Amino acid sequence: MRVVVNAAMSADGKLSSKRRDQITISGPDDFDRVDALRAGSDAVMVGVGTVLADDPHLTLDDPERQTARRERDEPAHPARVVADSRARTPTDARILDDAATTYVFVAESAPAERIEALEAAGARLVTAGEERVDLASALPSLEREGVEQLMVEGGGELIFSLFEAGLADELRVFVGSKLVGGRDAPTLADGEGFVAEFPELELDDVERVDDGVLLRYAVV
Amino acid sequence: MRVVVNAAMSADGKLSSKRRDQITISGPDDFDRVDALRAGSDAVMVGVGTVLADDPHLTLDDPERQTARRERDEPAHPARVVADSRARTPTDARILDDAATTYVFVAESAPAERIEALEAAGARLVTAGEERVDLASALPSLEREGVEQLMVEGGGELIFSLFEAGLADELRVFVGSKLVGGRDAPTLADGEGFVAEFPELELDDVERVDDGVLLRYAVV
Repeated sequence: MRVVVNAAMSADGKLSSKRRDQITISGPDDFDRVDALRAGSDAVMVGVGTVLADDPHLTLDDPERQTARRERDEPAHPARVVADSRARTPTDARILDDAATTYVFVAESAPAERIEALEAAGARLVTAGEERVDLASALPSLEREGVEQLMVEGGGELIFSLFEAGLADELRVFVGSKLVGGRDAPTLADGEGFVAEFPELELDDVERVDDGVLLRYAVV
Repeated sequence: MRVVVNAAMSADGKLSSKRRDQITISGPDDFDRVDALRAGSDAVMVGVGTVLADDPHLTLDDPERQTARRERDEPAHPARVVADSRARTPTDARILDDAATTYVFVAESAPAERIEALEAAGARLVTAGEERVDLASALPSLEREGVEQLMVEGGGELIFSLFEAGLADELRVFVGSKLVGGRDAPTLADGEGFVAEFPELELDDVERVDDGVLLRYAVV
């Protein structure tokens, strides 16, 4: 399975302000690029922090891309995946609606009543890891469901965890022409952070998009 | 006076690891670019956090650039400036040696004995602001000393303060092909962070340098 991490950050590496308000970082061309990347992916993943902060739907905007997927005998939208150790995804989250299949990755310690509530809301639960989701154990369950390309849309905690587990294959970052600042604002890669053996990237492509720049990296 | 902020950050916006260890983010071509930018500046500024973490010298590496400055009747090295509200710069810091003039910006509340120690170590003290250095009041004192171009080399607290005060004219960021991660790692712009009216930048130039990319912005 190929794991493609995609995010839009400010010129100083932030995904949002310290209040976790969503900020418009990119523009219409980048939104279209993200929609195309979603359309070419079998599943789109976010962390529960992103669900709680932004309530994203993660479906395709462009009807033609949905039609093209159907013509390839694929569902109109890619599957959706939430990394959610403690099963905190609200049952009325948009990501749980009927538009697409939704997987929720939880840890063994997640409260049983939350797991039941999510299952009742239609989510497919995958349990892996004791206190925190073990991504390396959870991703093969997607592979068995036919997911060949997994797109990861953040946030910074999930992105760090994927790099920490050595699971990311590609990183695509739109760098917007805006400064956000804040020592407590979420960044592209949060978590504990590396202190040695930093993951090395290879800059494959640089392209101006909207008022910013898109950087495409392979993970070495 | 023109204020040019220059920094090297990882692909996820970090200036160093959460331990504040210096990390090699850029390469020889970017080091040379930074040396040239220093040579073309009248003063080079850092925050005291950078002095305490890295003990930088902030002088020019290239002897030919030093000679060229002397031939223009300028000192061999640009002046050095530390933003240091509480006068914490150690008297044996490399930035205080005889290689160049050094200004230390302190707040009124800085301990008198620390101020005396810094003056005895040869620093030129500039007092502005009560508890924290008021950069808008302090920078004109450099202008009166003939500083037409001030280069700012970080860290993220100082960079945020300059943007907050509306004092930055240009931002040049080398984005290295490395992931650092860490919700507590220093970023290009830390401080309190903006929550609205984010400073807008204009991406003037994109250039591949070493294994990364150099982004040059004008502050709108």
